[in-house]
Amino acid sequence: MRKITVSQARFQRSPDQEADIFTADMIGRDDGAPVTIGFGRYEPHQELNETMRVDDVMMVIAGHLTVTGANGTVTAGPGEVVHMPKGERIQIRSHEHGATTAYVTYPHWTDAR
Amino acid sequence: MRKITVSQARFQRSPDQEADIFTADMIGRDDGAPVTIGFGRYEPHQELNETMRVDDVMMVIAGHLTVTGANGTVTAGPGEVVHMPKGERIQIRSHEHGATTAYVTYPHWTDAR
Repeated sequence: MRKITVSQARFQRSPDQEADIFTADMIGRDDGAPVTIGFGRYEPHQELNETMRVDDVMMVIAGHLTVTGANGTVTAGPGEVVHMPKGERIQIRSHEHGATTAYVTYPHWTDAR
Repeated sequence: MRKITVSQARFQRSPDQEADIFTADMIGRDDGAPVTIGFGRYEPHQELNETMRVDDVMMVIAGHLTVTGANGTVTAGPGEVVHMPKGERIQIRSHEHGATTAYVTYPHWTDAR
């Protein structure tokens, strides 16, 4: 059993893109876990476009994010959760205050790059 | 892509126990997802003891929960995440205000009962 918090996170720029969007993997394969668990940080007015290589469950901790997928657009705020399935083309946009998220991916997203 | 919120949840008593602890699975196998995603609701001063049959990632949305496992005890509040690995004996306790959580399990927890 392990608790993780944003204050422990060491954020790095999310790979393969230039936006001010950062990720911090906290628990993963090296811990024997079948999923990767981490935190995300989006600076204001950033945009990420990607085709999902894994299933990604994103929970918004602070701020708001607008997510566009094959079936429309949603905006999620604190305590709301967005499931982005493997294979779907996704756009994520942050707003004036940026956003902080927690994520769980299956399988490990760094294996799927 | 799908957004889920606590306001959509239809909570049911968590199985195999009598405490006022409720779960609402929102996305799972029937949606083609490899994980089950849902929300949890803990009334005040409740206690759950179980041996984890799946890996469970719990994100606290509101309130606080105290989790005891093989390696100690943590208390998690809003925006904090607790990973409970498959096979570990876990106790979860709520406090005076109860708690609301989001969870992600791998594999589907209802298959492992």
